[in-house]
Amino acid sequence: MSEPQRMRRGRRGGAAGSAREKGAITQAGWGVATSPYPPFQIISADQIVAIHRAALRVLAEQGMQITHPPACDLLKEHGATVEGDMVRFDPAMVEEKVTTAPDKVTLHARNPARNVTIQPGSTVVCAVGGPAFATDLDRGRRNANFADMKDFSRLIQMLDVINMEGGGAIEPTDLPAETRHLDMYQAFITLTDKVWSGYALGGFRADDGIDMAAIAMGTDRAGLLERPAILTVINSNSPRLLDGPMSEGLMAYAGAGQPFAATPFTLAGAMAPATIAGASVQQHAEAMAMIVLAQCVRPGAPVIYGGFTSNVDMKTGAPAFGTPEYSQAVLIGCQLARRLGVPYRTSNVTSSNAPDAQAAWESMMSLWGAFLGQAGLIKQGAGWIEGGLTASFEKFILDAEMLQMMRAFVTPPKIDDAEFGLEAMDEVGPGGHFFGTSHTLERYEHAFYQPLVSDVRNFETWQDSGSPTTAQNANRVWKQLLADYEEPPLDPAIGEELDAFVTRRKAEISKGS
Amino acid sequence: MSEPQRMRRGRRGGAAGSAREKGAITQAGWGVATSPYPPFQIISADQIVAIHRAALRVLAEQGMQITHPPACDLLKEHGATVEGDMVRFDPAMVEEKVTTAPDKVTLHARNPARNVTIQPGSTVVCAVGGPAFATDLDRGRRNANFADMKDFSRLIQMLDVINMEGGGAIEPTDLPAETRHLDMYQAFITLTDKVWSGYALGGFRADDGIDMAAIAMGTDRAGLLERPAILTVINSNSPRLLDGPMSEGLMAYAGAGQPFAATPFTLAGAMAPATIAGASVQQHAEAMAMIVLAQCVRPGAPVIYGGFTSNVDMKTGAPAFGTPEYSQAVLIGCQLARRLGVPYRTSNVTSSNAPDAQAAWESMMSLWGAFLGQAGLIKQGAGWIEGGLTASFEKFILDAEMLQMMRAFVTPPKIDDAEFGLEAMDEVGPGGHFFGTSHTLERYEHAFYQPLVSDVRNFETWQDSGSPTTAQNANRVWKQLLADYEEPPLDPAIGEELDAFVTRRKAEISKGS
Repeated sequence: MSEPQRMRRGRRGGAAGSAREKGAITQAGWGVATSPYPPFQIISADQIVAIHRAALRVLAEQGMQITHPPACDLLKEHGATVEGDMVRFDPAMVEEKVTTAPDKVTLHARNPARNVTIQPGSTVVCAVGGPAFATDLDRGRRNANFADMKDFSRLIQMLDVINMEGGGAIEPTDLPAETRHLDMYQAFITLTDKVWSGYALGGFRADDGIDMAAIAMGTDRAGLLERPAILTVINSNSPRLLDGPMSEGLMAYAGAGQPFAATPFTLAGAMAPATIAGASVQQHAEAMAMIVLAQCVRPGAPVIYGGFTSNVDMKTGAPAFGTPEYSQAVLIGCQLARRLGVPYRTSNVTSSNAPDAQAAWESMMSLWGAFLGQAGLIKQGAGWIEGGLTASFEKFILDAEMLQMMRAFVTPPKIDDAEFGLEAMDEVGPGGHFFGTSHTLERYEHAFYQPLVSDVRNFETWQDSGSPTTAQNANRVWKQLLADYEEPPLDPAIGEELDAFVTRRKAEISKGS
Repeated sequence: MSEPQRMRRGRRGGAAGSAREKGAITQAGWGVATSPYPPFQIISADQIVAIHRAALRVLAEQGMQITHPPACDLLKEHGATVEGDMVRFDPAMVEEKVTTAPDKVTLHARNPARNVTIQPGSTVVCAVGGPAFATDLDRGRRNANFADMKDFSRLIQMLDVINMEGGGAIEPTDLPAETRHLDMYQAFITLTDKVWSGYALGGFRADDGIDMAAIAMGTDRAGLLERPAILTVINSNSPRLLDGPMSEGLMAYAGAGQPFAATPFTLAGAMAPATIAGASVQQHAEAMAMIVLAQCVRPGAPVIYGGFTSNVDMKTGAPAFGTPEYSQAVLIGCQLARRLGVPYRTSNVTSSNAPDAQAAWESMMSLWGAFLGQAGLIKQGAGWIEGGLTASFEKFILDAEMLQMMRAFVTPPKIDDAEFGLEAMDEVGPGGHFFGTSHTLERYEHAFYQPLVSDVRNFETWQDSGSPTTAQNANRVWKQLLADYEEPPLDPAIGEELDAFVTRRKAEISKGS
């Protein structure tokens, strides 16, 4: 018997596990991953200082184009040099403004058990947001629509490892563009009781989100200032451009004290230099410019430093995600954010067009970077494929499994005499089996990670059931979760107030257009 | 445009990469991954001491059953307490014997450019060894045979990221059991010029391997002592049993100064307590017993501390590989081996029955543990599926990609002014594109990791080519590699000597049986 064959000696037996089960699906339970380990330092403290200084130089000498006059005016008031829409930042001003950004932010859900704190050392997971297509194994790839978006929202509610809704898992392109945000926000609030994300594309979409978050929390904007309840992403148009709608969104969120993830798109070799070092400098410069603008709007406004540095495939020019360079950039970003004293936002990304092995290893490269670096927030945490063009129902489940595994990994093993089980070793004797020992029986319900979709059946059993791939197993899981879904209860008065708000705003927008 | 859609802005363009290309396949080039980072400490130094002390107690109080009288006699001579075949070790004896084990070992290949040093801080990768079945997408799962074994050997030769042959990627069950090792060794030596692995199952298979390694290196056993050239694995039958054939193999390798990986099979909940702590104690006790035996045979005999701690799936009792607990156990094992001052051997494992997403994430859990812990050797590094029952041609390629990615990840990014490219940022301007800058053009050939099989084509192009999964792309790659394969030249005199040896030994074995 050769080495691997000996490995099959584990005997069949045992009973069902006791991790939280929803319907027929076993889950690891609600929680935010918390790591007691020091964050991984991929580059030295001196190298971080070098990147920081280079980024300050970019902001001082080259500047940032900000195509939103109120933002330029405000920055000028606070000491920036503005020529037309080019804004240059004195390094001292940047360093000073950044100090007022808080080091963490708690987001409040309408179910307080689902509140999350975005901070170093723990990693909040947010679902995918924004793809133009939806796909699953049965129906194939299709234009994103509201019905699919609602199903994704239901999966977000059902999957404990997903801590937050991500702003519409897909963009419901069957709804009118000017008012769809209202239908989306209402769906997030009614279909889930978790924290949700809003649009930042223009001030009115931002303001509607903030107003609806206030209604959902039974409060007003003053109350929301104390207890933030909505998150958005602000993307600069790298290199060095912040456009009008994004500036408006940024100022609306910062003004209302609601957090945003300031996320440059620094694809090395395309929107940034063809080096991880250069792309990191550029990311850092742009993120700092957005953080400074927020602090000018409202000192102490909660912000999250976002990074999306990856590289193009040099053979084709196509974006490549989940590469070794991507993981390195995540870790550099985490170190840069720690230097600024703000939480870091990263993502779970892949270039793959299918929920296959490549999708898994690219996601793993993303997640190991995130968890080792202790990013405070993983946006696009589950469901992303095709470099973000499509949300996949099966990939959503695969990601949930990988996220559960990473959470289990960063939970340290217990090391003490009771765990050692020397009496059990004595009881079993050489060549024996531990299954029947009291040491095992006392632990078997909670001993090990229980998979959501991983298939450990032997080959014959697996073959008899049709030789399903992981994606096919995931197809079964998401359908079961949707079948088991129940809408979380919502105070009818709040439901009515939301209805009235949406109706009124639709009328106003339609009148205005 | 929502966040993910913006990510597709990378433009098409660029030229073919310049990493080493063999035929149509781009590879990262020969090399052993070396990490400049401190190894990840999953548990504290005090906890490592607690495990070490508990393992010493197991060896002193419970002992190890060793069903090989010469081994028992030798251990008794060196101070162990032996009753029948139960051997108990005084802690002071263990601590003393372990000190003579070297902290690294260089293995010599018949092509000196393929020599490898197994040591902390670098990670040598060895291919799969031993499965009873072979599989690929075209021909399905079949009994392992010599023709398939030779094809795997050719792939080992072709893939630069695979540093060593693993002892027969599959067990050629179509050859007679008593002499197949001779045909296998001859195939390894002729089809590859890398270091190869021998059987340890019984003294004659071990001795034949060592003799053939000497022939291949143009030396004798005295020469081999100076320049080890063959590796094997010694498995204890956990818990606490070392059988006769394995003891014979261990003593043969140690006597000849050739290294072995002392690898207990401590599947938590089956052959070990149902805790990672308990399984680690038991692994450590058994590994130390084997290391001590080797040092009694020959002080300074090269040994590698092997670990194979995973857990059973508590719902079914089936072995589960590549779990979060598996990664934790790898890291604990690396810490324990560092305490003893010997290199650590781990593996690249999965329970999956197919080269699918689960296979990828379980391998990634294995590899991240190995690379973060800086295991000196990854056995079963490429090709393993089904918990080791089967070697998959497609998984072989998937593993090669993941291994290349991990090697790239642990290679630190360059951080300096030239890499920052501030002039390029100035040249491009806000909202521009970096593809045409001289900074990019100077770097585009070597800028980023180039995938072996990952597919970054856009959805339409991918769909037009038949929507291949990663496994289907891998199928194309291994066939291309086999088509491009050329046998490495071998000194005809050595070839004749090997022929003569194999013929003679076959006759002797057939006569003896």
